[in-house]
Amino acid sequence: MSKVFVSVGITLDGFMAGLNGGPQKPLGEGGLAIHEWVFKQQIFRQHLGWGNDGETGKDNEIAKGIFDRIGANILGKNMFIEGEANWPEDAPFHCPVFVLTHETREPWVRKGGTTFYFENDGIYAALEKAKAVAGDKDIRISGGAKVIQQYLNAGLVEEFIIHQVPLLLGKGVRLFENLDTDKYSFEIIEAINSPEVTHIRYKVINKK
Amino acid sequence: MSKVFVSVGITLDGFMAGLNGGPQKPLGEGGLAIHEWVFKQQIFRQHLGWGNDGETGKDNEIAKGIFDRIGANILGKNMFIEGEANWPEDAPFHCPVFVLTHETREPWVRKGGTTFYFENDGIYAALEKAKAVAGDKDIRISGGAKVIQQYLNAGLVEEFIIHQVPLLLGKGVRLFENLDTDKYSFEIIEAINSPEVTHIRYKVINKK
Repeated sequence: MSKVFVSVGITLDGFMAGLNGGPQKPLGEGGLAIHEWVFKQQIFRQHLGWGNDGETGKDNEIAKGIFDRIGANILGKNMFIEGEANWPEDAPFHCPVFVLTHETREPWVRKGGTTFYFENDGIYAALEKAKAVAGDKDIRISGGAKVIQQYLNAGLVEEFIIHQVPLLLGKGVRLFENLDTDKYSFEIIEAINSPEVTHIRYKVINKK
Repeated sequence: MSKVFVSVGITLDGFMAGLNGGPQKPLGEGGLAIHEWVFKQQIFRQHLGWGNDGETGKDNEIAKGIFDRIGANILGKNMFIEGEANWPEDAPFHCPVFVLTHETREPWVRKGGTTFYFENDGIYAALEKAKAVAGDKDIRISGGAKVIQQYLNAGLVEEFIIHQVPLLLGKGVRLFENLDTDKYSFEIIEAINSPEVTHIRYKVINKK
């Protein structure tokens, strides 16, 4: 049975992107640094078609474990617009991606198995469609912050993973706000660290 | 040689206390929950004179390791005022405590080895005095947030430990703000978790 999970990079001071992000500045001011650790990993470089080099340690193993379990992604329109301008032709998802948007658009098929579907009927409908194509694999709520917040508040997220980097951005897009925390709590499953990133995995306990 | 370190409880959304803290409401609205894990530990209960019961697992070991290394504490006036109204006669520090304040006051000796010294000459002078009495043990910058921020920005902190609980407070006193991050960076030394708390230890690399 597919699980719905979040896996997101975040600074020590709680930001998942810098300010003023957009197609010309993906992840905003200073935001790329949040993902510096993953850019070095072999699995990520393979996924982006950058070659087979890269680190193969603990961080790579964790990143690989996450990539391997994803059967479908859900992401918001702003994240898509940033990515559309910057992803290579062989887009890095390699599975179906559902984009929450008001725009009507035919599916956009990319090399390497990524197809973007533009979903106009809200978060529940997008999740149903993602589940229908994910098979036994899991659904990743990829971002941005507002999309993650919506899925959490709707009680639809079962697992929550942060990749917390010891970086202080000072300002940016906060992950942990607009949250209706009466509806759920977190339990820590495990924390694993390298010098550059702490991966913390939580079970989300949705209250009835 | 004494090390200067911070060890602080913090929520997943970055708060080290709730709003409207004071003598009548220590740690502010919802803030006590940040420390729920430690209230259950044997070492903490012993330190507060609550008896020898309590948990003796990984969290207790970590708390004990921290208590054992402290030769002197430094804390701000607001934290002292909150504590003065609430600590038992046998105050929980069991070593010298330097309180940063503008108030002139004679040292206040408590049962069990805690003496509060009221320090009027700023953070550097307080640290010198703390080092003079700490022997081979370490100096803990205990809080509140502003005091920790001042010591970090002055380049005086060498180790930084957070006890991050999977709690979302929504609002409160932020630890990570007012920070001059051009002056230092963090490197992760280790992350250890139980279901209730992730202890993350950082080395602070002060830039010249």
